[in-house]
Amino acid sequence: MAQTLGVITPQVMQVETPLTLSSGAVLPRYDLTYETYGQLNEDASNAILVCHALSGDHHVAGLDADNKPGWWDSYIGPGKPVDTNHFFVVCSNNLGGCRGSTGPASLNPETGKVYGPDFPIATCKDWVNSQYELQKHLKIPQWAALIGGSMGGMQVLQWAMDYPDQLRHALVIAAAPKLSAQNIAFNVVARRAIMSDPDFHEGRFLEHNTTPKQGLAQARMLGHLTYLSDDLMGTKFGRERREDALKYNYEVEFQIESYLNYQGEKFATKQNFDANTYLLMTKALDYFDPAAEFDHDLSKALACATAKFLVVSFTSDWRFSPERSHEIVKALLDNDTDVCYAEITSEHGHDAFLLPNEHYEGIFRAYMKRVLKDIPSQHDETKK
Amino acid sequence: MAQTLGVITPQVMQVETPLTLSSGAVLPRYDLTYETYGQLNEDASNAILVCHALSGDHHVAGLDADNKPGWWDSYIGPGKPVDTNHFFVVCSNNLGGCRGSTGPASLNPETGKVYGPDFPIATCKDWVNSQYELQKHLKIPQWAALIGGSMGGMQVLQWAMDYPDQLRHALVIAAAPKLSAQNIAFNVVARRAIMSDPDFHEGRFLEHNTTPKQGLAQARMLGHLTYLSDDLMGTKFGRERREDALKYNYEVEFQIESYLNYQGEKFATKQNFDANTYLLMTKALDYFDPAAEFDHDLSKALACATAKFLVVSFTSDWRFSPERSHEIVKALLDNDTDVCYAEITSEHGHDAFLLPNEHYEGIFRAYMKRVLKDIPSQHDETKK
Repeated sequence: MAQTLGVITPQVMQVETPLTLSSGAVLPRYDLTYETYGQLNEDASNAILVCHALSGDHHVAGLDADNKPGWWDSYIGPGKPVDTNHFFVVCSNNLGGCRGSTGPASLNPETGKVYGPDFPIATCKDWVNSQYELQKHLKIPQWAALIGGSMGGMQVLQWAMDYPDQLRHALVIAAAPKLSAQNIAFNVVARRAIMSDPDFHEGRFLEHNTTPKQGLAQARMLGHLTYLSDDLMGTKFGRERREDALKYNYEVEFQIESYLNYQGEKFATKQNFDANTYLLMTKALDYFDPAAEFDHDLSKALACATAKFLVVSFTSDWRFSPERSHEIVKALLDNDTDVCYAEITSEHGHDAFLLPNEHYEGIFRAYMKRVLKDIPSQHDETKK
Repeated sequence: MAQTLGVITPQVMQVETPLTLSSGAVLPRYDLTYETYGQLNEDASNAILVCHALSGDHHVAGLDADNKPGWWDSYIGPGKPVDTNHFFVVCSNNLGGCRGSTGPASLNPETGKVYGPDFPIATCKDWVNSQYELQKHLKIPQWAALIGGSMGGMQVLQWAMDYPDQLRHALVIAAAPKLSAQNIAFNVVARRAIMSDPDFHEGRFLEHNTTPKQGLAQARMLGHLTYLSDDLMGTKFGRERREDALKYNYEVEFQIESYLNYQGEKFATKQNFDANTYLLMTKALDYFDPAAEFDHDLSKALACATAKFLVVSFTSDWRFSPERSHEIVKALLDNDTDVCYAEITSEHGHDAFLLPNEHYEGIFRAYMKRVLKDIPSQHDETKK
């Protein structure tokens, strides 16, 4: 039976050397907040880095101070697919985030005021560079694996291209090699909802002691719309109303309406997600396009990757559909890269990558056994 | 060669008898603004009623006073599939609209002030009832055909159920027998964008000499997102940027962004669409579910229909996908109703129903010949 990880205390890496971002902007200093689970082995060869999605953070497993389980707790822990009895797992909040790492809500050391809109837009490349500092900080010579879903999967791709010899395995789940025009369009509408909220104050809402709750809630509602499949929404909510009789007014009436409103409010109010971080993360997604520097040829872009890959997609995911994963797999095969691909049947849409699913768990677990086998110091043990 | 219809002058039917709506609300009086094209024949047997979609209006063909062609001008006119050399075509702005028919922007005769949010929510059923008044007003004993796309297609279904002996043919294009949870969800987010705009003033924006432009533009952008297919957006805009270099800020950068912004602004500012009408139309769509009164059995709901049907869907339409049309066709077949079904290959998504397409036009034209044949007085002529 799986044990539990218990309460995890986040740690902070403080980097006092300046970081030049893709945009050319320089961060004079920054913090990366991270959590770790399991024990680093003697030769530091069992370390795994997990990259989070758009609204995720470093709290990926175990419980936080409020006893809230991590966002991927069902897959990471003792006896779980990413088994913390064997692996030392690390997850950090991305630069530009709002959960402890330096971001728009942090103090700008040069002005003594909150960055707000002055925080430079970070990219996937910048995140990877800052995580490489974390790798050195933790004295990890090479990651046994990088794992990420959605935006996190893109980050894993970026790692495999920018630091090919720093990872042995790359697990790219429910991701895409770049956003489609439709993906960008959803981000455009979400950003507009935030930026047109009168409480946005051109990004200086914290200085005005407010937050653009309405806009952020709308952006989140729109996000949820793309995370769930049409079928699942149908199964889960259908056209059910909260009351039998039609209201003939604009109050909340359908269950799906009530669900989306709840998700929006929770995100903007209870979880207090920073609106500037949301803008930044969506823009980093829009910009992600590693093939662009290689004549828009993804195969060329991935030619330098030496890691072994697991690519996973979900049948009902229409945000990053299986076809988008096929593009990645094709590019890897063009380079004779070692790649396993699994297309998991699920009705849960893009959200499926976070949810329990027997087939998915089986593949994930089997692949992680392979990752374990490839750990030099564990080799003898796993041979038994 | 097709002639042109020239400039068309809208007409207004003024109804001074009260109309009770589905909600129970009573409209003391109302106007329906409409246009007609072609000539009504002697026994008034060649009349066709076209029903418009969410943001459509009565100006379906010919030119308006500003020389703007109607929204379906490519399919309606002399020599076109709906041939005005043979048919007398009528199109009216729906009740609750903002293009001349009585709606939220009209004066409430009981208060002398603009209705605004006090205008009652109308339903598909109400639109059909008011259009039946128009039919009587025009002294048309029976429509040769009812034609509608998207929301207009739903209205045609409603006509076929509520006034089965008032139409001989029903053309239901790119429609659905009810909205899915996902369809409703998009409407929920669109309405929220409008209603949370500080210029909305709880619907009394006209009294405040303003309009919720931001919210309406966002709603329209979201609409456009669902009208276009992912593929078409990819072909048309891809990830193209307005300038080569990345901006690393939140200014308009991608072509799709620029397109959506333009569509949003145009709708909210230049076309000055009434925000309360937009709310009303989306709510009427949410409510449309004729099977609900028949144990959620669409076959039972359509059992009374006596018209012959043409049902058309488009392969890349993900708003009302071909599967939604299949539901309608199945229900009609369950009743041994005469139905033709065409699934048109198109990459244009939901918008396809408005756009030129050889296959679509061929089917439309062929079916309209059948409609013409079924006109009693034209029978001899078409036999030749």
